Amino acid sequence: MIHITDPLIATYLMTLQPEEDPRLLAMEEKAKAMNFPIIDRQVGRFLHLLTLLKRPKLVVELGSGFGYSALWIARALEDGARIVLTEYAEKNLAYARGIFTEEGLAEKAEFRTGNALELGQEYDDIDILFIDMDKYLYPAALEAMLPHLAPKALLIADNALWRGRVVETLDTKNNEPVKKFNEIMSRHDSFFTTIVPVGDGVLIAYRLS
Amino acid sequence: MIHITDPLIATYLMTLQPEEDPRLLAMEEKAKAMNFPIIDRQVGRFLHLLTLLKRPKLVVELGSGFGYSALWIARALEDGARIVLTEYAEKNLAYARGIFTEEGLAEKAEFRTGNALELGQEYDDIDILFIDMDKYLYPAALEAMLPHLAPKALLIADNALWRGRVVETLDTKNNEPVKKFNEIMSRHDSFFTTIVPVGDGVLIAYRLS
Repeated sequence: MIHITDPLIATYLMTLQPEEDPRLLAMEEKAKAMNFPIIDRQVGRFLHLLTLLKRPKLVVELGSGFGYSALWIARALEDGARIVLTEYAEKNLAYARGIFTEEGLAEKAEFRTGNALELGQEYDDIDILFIDMDKYLYPAALEAMLPHLAPKALLIADNALWRGRVVETLDTKNNEPVKKFNEIMSRHDSFFTTIVPVGDGVLIAYRLS
Repeated sequence: MIHITDPLIATYLMTLQPEEDPRLLAMEEKAKAMNFPIIDRQVGRFLHLLTLLKRPKLVVELGSGFGYSALWIARALEDGARIVLTEYAEKNLAYARGIFTEEGLAEKAEFRTGNALELGQEYDDIDILFIDMDKYLYPAALEAMLPHLAPKALLIADNALWRGRVVETLDTKNNEPVKKFNEIMSRHDSFFTTIVPVGDGVLIAYRLS
């Protein structure tokens, strides 16, 4: 098994910046207990930082689960900005809505139940698009969503290194689409793209015009 | 020896985004031939992206070498923005000046020979401070430079994981100062800080006010 980042280094980073926030910790515990996939905490920190830097008006997230990544992003939003969460499972979104309400962030969020790709296309001038849905849908997400991005938008995708499987030939159902997605964005003339090996790999593409 | 990022993953990223730019390739060759330390190419891409996102007016670099990192940053600067290169060795800066002139970027750059810490303090309202000088000086760089940052500034430092030595007890001349630097920024109330395990580790700290 490939460790994208050396485990000692990963531990160093976790120890250097211990998390004390009860809401984040509770969500991490919930994910562990349910065996539900959420972003790595270091990816959460990174998303928070990218959001602070970008200062978006509108964020759309494709595949929100129960809201862990959305919380990291929403905490970096300025007044008047909002994030759209999309998720198939109503009960996940209900949990997210509860967390956002407790946090005082409910008015910065829209909670949309259903097909993330269909819902996402209802929005235009998206400043940050965060993709974290089923991996085999990543290339389809580009086709659907690129026309809906604002100038100088930031496209971010989690799992771009897919547990290291991008360097293997296994698991083709998800692996080939992730590799194709990485290739499309890396070669796209309208974006500057880089993949950062944090957590499970984060692709970041900045729209150049 | 610790590989911060798995070597197969590092190769995947290099292959996915092959560099064809003759100036960057020549500088990488020069560094190799001279055994001169420059940032990892993936760190270069990351700096470029952070600069696109931040849209700074003024960038100050502490420790410019012969200008490889500065070139990645300068190519992302908007009209009217500038980068200050600082470096002890006059011949390194002369080389950088030549590259920037060929590139048509000379008017966006200032080339300052001397002590980086002293020179850096001549500037105020710095939007991006990039630290890549002698590692034992990293904590001193904070003391000297934090008062010179603009609101919402971005502080970036290379080698924050110091070839993985931050998890070892060796090499205390440089290692302890790097660890101390990471701790100071991680605990600083005025910054949101994260360390991204790209290349040799990049610390990014966003000033919250």
